[in-house]
Amino acid sequence: MTSNITIAVDAMGGDHGPSVTIPALADALELHPGVKFKIFGQEEAVRPHLDKFPALRAVSEMAHCDISISMDEKPAAALRRGRKTSSMWMSIAAVKDGGAQAAISAGNTGALMAMSKVVLQTIPGIERPALAAMWPTLIGESVVLDVGATIGVSADQYAQFASMGQAYARIVLGIEEPRVALLNIGVEDVKGTDDLRRAAELLSGSDMNFIGFVEGDGIGRGDADVIVTDGFTGNIALKTAEGTARQFATMLREAMSSSWLSRIGYLFARGAFDALKMKMDPNAANGGMFLGLNGIVVKSHGGTDQSGFATATEVAIEVAISDMAKKISQDVESMQVLLEDAWAEKLD
Amino acid sequence: MTSNITIAVDAMGGDHGPSVTIPALADALELHPGVKFKIFGQEEAVRPHLDKFPALRAVSEMAHCDISISMDEKPAAALRRGRKTSSMWMSIAAVKDGGAQAAISAGNTGALMAMSKVVLQTIPGIERPALAAMWPTLIGESVVLDVGATIGVSADQYAQFASMGQAYARIVLGIEEPRVALLNIGVEDVKGTDDLRRAAELLSGSDMNFIGFVEGDGIGRGDADVIVTDGFTGNIALKTAEGTARQFATMLREAMSSSWLSRIGYLFARGAFDALKMKMDPNAANGGMFLGLNGIVVKSHGGTDQSGFATATEVAIEVAISDMAKKISQDVESMQVLLEDAWAEKLD
Repeated sequence: MTSNITIAVDAMGGDHGPSVTIPALADALELHPGVKFKIFGQEEAVRPHLDKFPALRAVSEMAHCDISISMDEKPAAALRRGRKTSSMWMSIAAVKDGGAQAAISAGNTGALMAMSKVVLQTIPGIERPALAAMWPTLIGESVVLDVGATIGVSADQYAQFASMGQAYARIVLGIEEPRVALLNIGVEDVKGTDDLRRAAELLSGSDMNFIGFVEGDGIGRGDADVIVTDGFTGNIALKTAEGTARQFATMLREAMSSSWLSRIGYLFARGAFDALKMKMDPNAANGGMFLGLNGIVVKSHGGTDQSGFATATEVAIEVAISDMAKKISQDVESMQVLLEDAWAEKLD
Repeated sequence: MTSNITIAVDAMGGDHGPSVTIPALADALELHPGVKFKIFGQEEAVRPHLDKFPALRAVSEMAHCDISISMDEKPAAALRRGRKTSSMWMSIAAVKDGGAQAAISAGNTGALMAMSKVVLQTIPGIERPALAAMWPTLIGESVVLDVGATIGVSADQYAQFASMGQAYARIVLGIEEPRVALLNIGVEDVKGTDDLRRAAELLSGSDMNFIGFVEGDGIGRGDADVIVTDGFTGNIALKTAEGTARQFATMLREAMSSSWLSRIGYLFARGAFDALKMKMDPNAANGGMFLGLNGIVVKSHGGTDQSGFATATEVAIEVAISDMAKKISQDVESMQVLLEDAWAEKLD
């Protein structure tokens, strides 16, 4: 299967650039032999790293790009400066041209989103794209979207996000009928905004496994497999959760070194701590996904390390194998019919 | 000081009612001798508990109320059914009448908010009230508002919330010039909604210690003393953080019982764990506060236990002693001048 898959890589993205991205590709290749890479970046920065991994080099095509988008560049400026020249733009363009089945970057989120929209455009029936994140829960993982692509979402757009989230969850979670919920400030029908309530009505009338509203504390509990929200709220929720997990970990470390007894306890329990750290590690759940575009773009965390970028690359490979973009198109089409029916009813 | 303070108590509120609220009052009284209580509730439900605490009974006045608002009653229905008769309404009315300096309830948040607005009304210069929460951070505690009172906030209202948050932080955190920030999805000026950007402009021009935007992960890190947001986002952030902390605690417990070694480790480190649990315990940071009303109403968590309700009662006593409502009025007045200047400039 992987022999038909080529991943386009923005090697320059992220806080660490090729020193992290290239070794990560080598790791991903070991798990998915047969996959190929198109690597975009500054030749002199990428080559020394690539030369350390002959197996990776053998399946990679390297294309030199003069321009790298910096992490703090504003999207509009990045678009002007990096159009048709930057490693970020070129990796997305490779997906558009059919030369790659997915693009991956750890670069500037805003710039990546802006370029992806311009190059790939949204699929018919989707007004605005969404960034989906994998969220570790008590019972596994859930898909949360949007976590930062689109601020302010209409009822129809919530429904579109739900439909995309369902398709994505089917592939990455392997659940045929994922439980889909809207993130809200209460589980009662009277709570939240008009758009959320209207979206709930629409989804209740769909053939989706829609379970209603969940509150913020329901995400980590695993109350739903797909949690739908707008980009502002989703981004705040995701970063707040990351912050709280980090806070808890720091306090735990401080507590464990607070006395001789606790330090001895730590030595005994180290294995358990390491396992917990793995579970709550943002790098392990890495690989945000732009949904709703004519092509797959995976966003890795900017501050990610080698294992994080490798995980994100594996996600890109998996969704490319599953032909996710096409599956989402199909799901969105049936959602579109539903939305049109709902509006027709309203106009009657 | 406490000898002039009377706290009005909705004894029926919360998941456990008088069996939790009355013993909690006894605890609060021990720490604040001299304080008095007006207790509202069903006599036959409250009396048996009150009779167990003679010291509390001696400083309490009990008023029978036929009606108790249930936890899942919709605000409008609660307002109709509970007007002038329910223990919730009567405790707020006691503040309005001057018979008490603060009211406290662990009841239905929406109903408490609706009744508080009707009975007490917002102070001049404040368009809509906010619910403020204490948020445990790596370096102490921060005030986060609004966490659920007002959905959708204008630039002026953000500025009003900032002003109320500052006054509250001065009292509960004891910081003269608290660092005030707006919650946003990026720290750059280009991010977020127009209202947030306009609010940032307003606050930059104020004499407040305004430090700009913070992201979700900055809250738990303690990047600001006062974090301002709207009720929808704030509620999602608070519940998501609670959920993540609970998730981490559960996973830690599972990890510590996963092997003999880790169980031995736990025995050694138990003291450290207990200390950590205290720090991250939502009950310890209990006591949401309605700000912007002509009187003080403290909202305790519905699922709270005795120690949580006692903490919330202590918060009520402290803000009553400090005459917070008056201090907020003064701060809001100067913010009002600032807003009027800003608008006048715009019209010029």
